[in-house]
Amino acid sequence: MKIALAQFNPTIGDFNYNIAQIVSLSHKAIEAGCDLVVFPELAVCGYPPLDLLERREFIEDSLQAVDRLISKVRGIAVLCGCVSRNTSGVGKPIHNTAILFEDGKVLARVYKRLLPSYDIFDETRYFEPGTKSVPVPFKGLLVGITICEDIWSDADLFPEHNYPVNPVDELARQGTDVFITINASPFDTEKASHRYHILRHHATKYHRPFLYGNAVGGQDCVIFDGASMAVDPAGRLIAQAKDFAEDLVTIDTDTMQGERHPVSALREEAVVKALKLGLKDYAARCGLDRVVLGLSGGVDSSVTAVIAAQSLGSENVLGVLMPSPYTSRQSIDDAEALARNLGIEAVTLPISNIFDVYLEILKEVFSKRGPDVTEENIQARIRGNLLMAISNKFGYLVLSTGNKTELAVGYCTLYGDLSGGFALISDLPKTMVYEVARYLNAERKLIPEQVLTKAPSAELKPGQKDQDYLPPYDLLDSILKRYLEQNIAPEQIIAEGFDPEIVYRTVHMVDRSEYKRHQAPLGPRVTSRAFGYGRRYPIAHGYQKE
Amino acid sequence: MKIALAQFNPTIGDFNYNIAQIVSLSHKAIEAGCDLVVFPELAVCGYPPLDLLERREFIEDSLQAVDRLISKVRGIAVLCGCVSRNTSGVGKPIHNTAILFEDGKVLARVYKRLLPSYDIFDETRYFEPGTKSVPVPFKGLLVGITICEDIWSDADLFPEHNYPVNPVDELARQGTDVFITINASPFDTEKASHRYHILRHHATKYHRPFLYGNAVGGQDCVIFDGASMAVDPAGRLIAQAKDFAEDLVTIDTDTMQGERHPVSALREEAVVKALKLGLKDYAARCGLDRVVLGLSGGVDSSVTAVIAAQSLGSENVLGVLMPSPYTSRQSIDDAEALARNLGIEAVTLPISNIFDVYLEILKEVFSKRGPDVTEENIQARIRGNLLMAISNKFGYLVLSTGNKTELAVGYCTLYGDLSGGFALISDLPKTMVYEVARYLNAERKLIPEQVLTKAPSAELKPGQKDQDYLPPYDLLDSILKRYLEQNIAPEQIIAEGFDPEIVYRTVHMVDRSEYKRHQAPLGPRVTSRAFGYGRRYPIAHGYQKE
Repeated sequence: MKIALAQFNPTIGDFNYNIAQIVSLSHKAIEAGCDLVVFPELAVCGYPPLDLLERREFIEDSLQAVDRLISKVRGIAVLCGCVSRNTSGVGKPIHNTAILFEDGKVLARVYKRLLPSYDIFDETRYFEPGTKSVPVPFKGLLVGITICEDIWSDADLFPEHNYPVNPVDELARQGTDVFITINASPFDTEKASHRYHILRHHATKYHRPFLYGNAVGGQDCVIFDGASMAVDPAGRLIAQAKDFAEDLVTIDTDTMQGERHPVSALREEAVVKALKLGLKDYAARCGLDRVVLGLSGGVDSSVTAVIAAQSLGSENVLGVLMPSPYTSRQSIDDAEALARNLGIEAVTLPISNIFDVYLEILKEVFSKRGPDVTEENIQARIRGNLLMAISNKFGYLVLSTGNKTELAVGYCTLYGDLSGGFALISDLPKTMVYEVARYLNAERKLIPEQVLTKAPSAELKPGQKDQDYLPPYDLLDSILKRYLEQNIAPEQIIAEGFDPEIVYRTVHMVDRSEYKRHQAPLGPRVTSRAFGYGRRYPIAHGYQKE
Repeated sequence: MKIALAQFNPTIGDFNYNIAQIVSLSHKAIEAGCDLVVFPELAVCGYPPLDLLERREFIEDSLQAVDRLISKVRGIAVLCGCVSRNTSGVGKPIHNTAILFEDGKVLARVYKRLLPSYDIFDETRYFEPGTKSVPVPFKGLLVGITICEDIWSDADLFPEHNYPVNPVDELARQGTDVFITINASPFDTEKASHRYHILRHHATKYHRPFLYGNAVGGQDCVIFDGASMAVDPAGRLIAQAKDFAEDLVTIDTDTMQGERHPVSALREEAVVKALKLGLKDYAARCGLDRVVLGLSGGVDSSVTAVIAAQSLGSENVLGVLMPSPYTSRQSIDDAEALARNLGIEAVTLPISNIFDVYLEILKEVFSKRGPDVTEENIQARIRGNLLMAISNKFGYLVLSTGNKTELAVGYCTLYGDLSGGFALISDLPKTMVYEVARYLNAERKLIPEQVLTKAPSAELKPGQKDQDYLPPYDLLDSILKRYLEQNIAPEQIIAEGFDPEIVYRTVHMVDRSEYKRHQAPLGPRVTSRAFGYGRRYPIAHGYQKE
């Protein structure tokens, strides 16, 4: 049997677009001589629709779209993700479904059994799980169909999930010849190797080929990286679709031959592709095609500008220099050089005059207090106001330029540098920002060298350096990775040999700045645990270690 | 048997405080001659701890606190909410638990079976459900213990929930003599009558008394209103604790006599109490005792100021008048009169000079465009910056003053009037703001009468009126209630007789302003469906009706 993995980029709720794409890719698979074409999880409505799934009209439109789709494809069988009604009378009203149809006839409906309810996933909020897994006879083979999380239940591999059932194992016991799983699996820098690991595990454990079709595209904070693949019963990779792009690859399950397209070799390459895709899709789906950002001459805004220019085209990026009384000549030179290197438009809006009037207006109210962080924040918020004014006037999307480390410890200003519609590098720790900067500079020096070598500074008061306030970034990022991504207790981090004073200070900074993150713009996730939708902490609470 | 419902206000993660309070209230119950004292759901750790439940150290501290608590109370049995480990090896690592202990001995552990996964509730994210319900023998009676959602499963009453099991029914079948449910049930304006309705339903259906113990307090966006109660087998209310305050009431299950304390008679009274409690707890738990807000002379900021002054004391509220070139004399007079009536400090920071410098700096960039909403937003953001500067300098919590209607249709400025740590009236539709204003004025005219009678205006350009941009507020709120709270499709709303053009325009305004709400400050929930944590929509999507 010849199978195509059609890795496509659905738009949530744009049913006409999505089914037109599915039809078009099905024809492409027919031309490639395939018997079956496989589309991602919830391909018809897009993933994740979140609370749109609670709207009856959305479900109704979604079901009608599936009916239209079934009637439109002839000459090939289609396996595709969609919603379907739960008719049992018990539980949530819909199922997360893989539908198999051919020439107007539905051959099978498979319901997702393991509904992830962690991190960014809230599937138990919407879906009723399926209760059994039975292979589907198709063209003389028994096809074992699963949906995404269904394959992540294996006590050997994931002791922490503890799912009560293992759909892959159940399907294997019933004589499955070939496994196919449809997915909307989000990118993080460790995900690709995880996926291959589990496919190889299942394939070799059950001596069957395992096909993995993924979605691609950016949906708010989530990037689906594609990279669909197939492994043979020996665990060898026999098919590979591109990452971060729509693609279609075919697999012949008789010969165990498939197509292999190139994927990112380096972590930095994957991160850059993820951010470009995430920005492009976010902007387009918000109906915007141009972006504006502040250029400070620092590494964060430089990296953001390069990726924006590469994602949307230089002509669609406006850089704004907003020097304050404390901005160095070098910062201005670096920002201007970057804009020249990228070929983006740059304007300069000095903030000193505005800043002076704020201080004048506040003089009496502040008369009994000396300068402190307040005056720094006023400058950051003037910049936020200027960028938003340009956004409002010309319809540009404001990119905020903060990194994950700053956001973690609260080294950022609410309504200031946290202003924006999309926080492009907000899930990149500062050390990763530098790595990405060097990667972006490898081919051609886009970011001036001194941006990468000078000491980072917010330049909001004389002689200020980040490192006067924060632990060294490599140390800080090591602690944050353990505390935030790996969920390790402070005491355990200290037991690894980190300085207790620095660990507790870091943890306190993280805990105390929850209110800032609550109002931060969303940004694309690249680590295994990002702020935002997937990390939900109370703001006002009394829990404090040490 | 004599039972006390101890309605208390735990602080999330402050284990020492929580168990000290539980011990102290247990002694109060002993003094009242009780055999058993009942505390709310998750009383030991506070509710909802959200992702703190994913931290092993939090669970460890929580379990140790329970052990300490058990050893500390003598002379009375205690039924109390806490977490306990799931030792089955399958599923989520913890149970949402009701523990019954007496004189150092654990008599029963009951696990919550129905885990809500809708609106603000994500319990399937953290907890493994219990699998059976068995009454607990205690002092010669069979006590049927449930936790919150467990009692909301009844096909007669809640066809939409469709839970596969009904713990109350199971307990009744096993001879339960008295039902006790522990809760952390959030307030909304329709909740109190819902609760009584279901208690009466269960009590009369099974001919047994039903005791309902609730938590009280404000936790971020959620207000627990208390109002614990008990009904006899005939469905009569025999005990009632206060709403929006800690309280303890006793019930004698032999005589079916109990204590009844007063609760709010009017919806407006309940809303005001909810907001006062929510603000007080939020500020205290953030370590802040003073608030600052802008006073525009409009009804929203007036209501916010009155409630803040009543919640925290006039001496802890600072009002800031920030007149622009378009602010009317009447608005200034009204704001000043309000401040005088409340006895709060007020300062005036005119924004015209700052506004002029912004326009000057932006003149060249904006040279080819005429004035539009941009210039209005700049003014709003100047005000946001000034309030935040005062917050930063003096450590005040900024109260934002927007209402739900504005937030719904996006008639508000991100980083402008949406600036703040707590959005006190952000879940009050504009029509409810007026109702509450009149309620607040009933005893003594705090808000100048013309604030309630003049046409609402943002005063951001000459002659501006809200009603030039928006449908009349009573009509708009009627549509929004249907679309947002009742989840009714636009077509259905139109079928009720609403103007199609206005309905679609309203729906589009709601859908298009999702990005603003994503960065809005949190505020206390008073309606059955609020923005924020309980309503999760994608920002960038392609779903549009009509």
